[in-house]
Amino acid sequence: MQANDKTFTANGRTYRFPKHPTVVVCVDGCEPEYIALAIADGHMPWMKRTLQQGLGMQAQCVLPSFTNPNNVSIVTGVSPRVHGVSGNYFLDPLSGEAVMMNEPKWLRCPTLLAQASKAGLQVAVVTAKEKLRALLGHELQGICFSAEHADLANRETHGIAGVLEMVGLPKPAVYSAALSEFVWAAGVRLMQRHKPDLMYLSTTDYVQHKHAPGTPAANDFYAMLDRYMAQLESLGCVIAITADHGMHAKSHMDGTPRVIYLQAWLQSFLQRDDVRVILPITDPYVVHHGALGSFATVYLPADVSAKAVCETIQNIPGVDTAMLRAEAATALELPVDRIGDLVVLADRFTALGTHPQAHDLSGLDAPLRSHGGRGEQSVPLIMNRPASSLNRSRSLRNFDVFDVALNYAQ
Amino acid sequence: MQANDKTFTANGRTYRFPKHPTVVVCVDGCEPEYIALAIADGHMPWMKRTLQQGLGMQAQCVLPSFTNPNNVSIVTGVSPRVHGVSGNYFLDPLSGEAVMMNEPKWLRCPTLLAQASKAGLQVAVVTAKEKLRALLGHELQGICFSAEHADLANRETHGIAGVLEMVGLPKPAVYSAALSEFVWAAGVRLMQRHKPDLMYLSTTDYVQHKHAPGTPAANDFYAMLDRYMAQLESLGCVIAITADHGMHAKSHMDGTPRVIYLQAWLQSFLQRDDVRVILPITDPYVVHHGALGSFATVYLPADVSAKAVCETIQNIPGVDTAMLRAEAATALELPVDRIGDLVVLADRFTALGTHPQAHDLSGLDAPLRSHGGRGEQSVPLIMNRPASSLNRSRSLRNFDVFDVALNYAQ
Repeated sequence: MQANDKTFTANGRTYRFPKHPTVVVCVDGCEPEYIALAIADGHMPWMKRTLQQGLGMQAQCVLPSFTNPNNVSIVTGVSPRVHGVSGNYFLDPLSGEAVMMNEPKWLRCPTLLAQASKAGLQVAVVTAKEKLRALLGHELQGICFSAEHADLANRETHGIAGVLEMVGLPKPAVYSAALSEFVWAAGVRLMQRHKPDLMYLSTTDYVQHKHAPGTPAANDFYAMLDRYMAQLESLGCVIAITADHGMHAKSHMDGTPRVIYLQAWLQSFLQRDDVRVILPITDPYVVHHGALGSFATVYLPADVSAKAVCETIQNIPGVDTAMLRAEAATALELPVDRIGDLVVLADRFTALGTHPQAHDLSGLDAPLRSHGGRGEQSVPLIMNRPASSLNRSRSLRNFDVFDVALNYAQ
Repeated sequence: MQANDKTFTANGRTYRFPKHPTVVVCVDGCEPEYIALAIADGHMPWMKRTLQQGLGMQAQCVLPSFTNPNNVSIVTGVSPRVHGVSGNYFLDPLSGEAVMMNEPKWLRCPTLLAQASKAGLQVAVVTAKEKLRALLGHELQGICFSAEHADLANRETHGIAGVLEMVGLPKPAVYSAALSEFVWAAGVRLMQRHKPDLMYLSTTDYVQHKHAPGTPAANDFYAMLDRYMAQLESLGCVIAITADHGMHAKSHMDGTPRVIYLQAWLQSFLQRDDVRVILPITDPYVVHHGALGSFATVYLPADVSAKAVCETIQNIPGVDTAMLRAEAATALELPVDRIGDLVVLADRFTALGTHPQAHDLSGLDAPLRSHGGRGEQSVPLIMNRPASSLNRSRSLRNFDVFDVALNYAQ
């Protein structure tokens, strides 16, 4: 462990070297109500004590409230306007192709994890899904692997080998609660065996997409989180917990998704087909949400008035806000060159799609729960240590979590 | 049963005499997600079939999204601006006293139930709580009693005696799921024995204030609703179901209520004590919500600029909208003489209180769930018959439910 007067910097922010091993946990899709109801039903004794004795606040995530932009914000400490990752998926203006934003080439700044490792800290990263590994591990000198591809981790490219043996759990299925459990179990093992100074654990929201707060499967998941956090604490760790986004039901009473099919709507409204709706929730894993989220960006033909279309979309029931590109870039802190002519946010109850036939909903075995809009911006920011010097009136973002953990933990 | 070419009118709307016994059910606090998750988990087979074969829409309730204004809207077919019941509780401008709005003297128009009974229909009303009985039964020539005071029903004042014996259930406790069960059981018995032409059943939201959608206690409650509705259907009834309001969690992660104490805030902001906040959720039964809802109205001293205060309140985190009296009366369809200088709506996640010490939260044994704002305006409008002549683009209100049941059921 390093002395506490040393610091490292990343993207204009300065972080103290940790006095104690410090773990930041991003619980994917952790609507705060999951925690409130799991505590109320007695499933999170560690969390209950932590909220009493440590720090328990809510923070706002970045928009779109999707996984990649928020995980990248958390590990860079800056908004998408700075780091450039505007979605899980976007329309590359150079190629004209819609592509995943899983590659470091989309990153416009270094991660604080890489900077910490270059400053001499031992850094470890475990992510549930492989899609995030390259982004989170960019230029990192340390350990970085995914639960999904735990069997492929090797010393040269991941900083560690023999992960399955170390963790002692079978390789989990990609659509499972076990995928997140593997992340936490790996975190405990890493802390026992490798004692990293700084560790980032990022789970998957498979459970939250299927199960509402307070339901048995959700409570089981949070009870599991609670047990692993207690283990990390017993190893002396400072633990700070946040989320990439919240989660809400977006369904009709019969269980079918409540969706505005925006591309179909635009084609009908404009009476032309050369309009393109991009859904940045799209990623390689869409079985549990069918690529339906509450955020879309629209590319219009040059001869169509974006302003007129924007005003009309604003009046569709279920739309929270429609904004022109420049306004969205400023108000939502998005990279102006990586969004379309319009940005459309659906409300807390509604998701956005392209065409009905473009969404495979056959894998949805529960009413749709999803995210992407402002309704899912409130996320936990919890730490197992007090932070008395933290200004409680500060508007916290989830990407302040490393600042809070490294600069304010007592 | 009457011939179908006869009609009755109430408050400018015309209703056909029912061809089949017709039951309108107001499920207090029925956020649509309760139904979606209960169906998804297999607890509502009747409802699942009904949504496939009948009518399944969502409607908007009136604001404030509280019990009295909405029950009165449902049984009058008009908004609070017309019927005058602006809350469960209000500041009487004549007396200067804050009083319950449980008495018919606050009603500014007749109910359609009274008009139906005067036109010759056999009408029956069962409400969970006694507080609504006088309003719902105003000028009604028929049966009207509450589950809460079922033992006090007599032929002279309630149109029926021996209710406990008829229903065959013990007199339920006022804070219980059984209070609502008694309403439904009484409805089935009344339909078997008295065969009313038109029946209104109104339950209580005790379960919804405590239990989130999809949780075991909520699913049990909705399974019970489902069984009673199947019984009513087997008796040949047209059944139309709506709600007075939805329900959302309004709590922090540690389970404490997330509240803006508006009177305390105003006293601090204005540095004076002669400001008064009225919480229209207040009623004689506050154990399960501590009189915390998402709607408040504010009476300011004459020398204070309402506009300036309104703009400042608008910026408090958790406030959805603050409006001046005239704007609120128009936009929210409220009686202008029964609201204060300001109307304040909290967002979906937040409740409004007066002072911390004015709210007894000792009865809250689960994280606060409440209602009152626009976040709780979406409610079911379900019927066990198709309604093909109903314009699906019509913006339905919950107080259209008798129109839908009597004029559109096939």
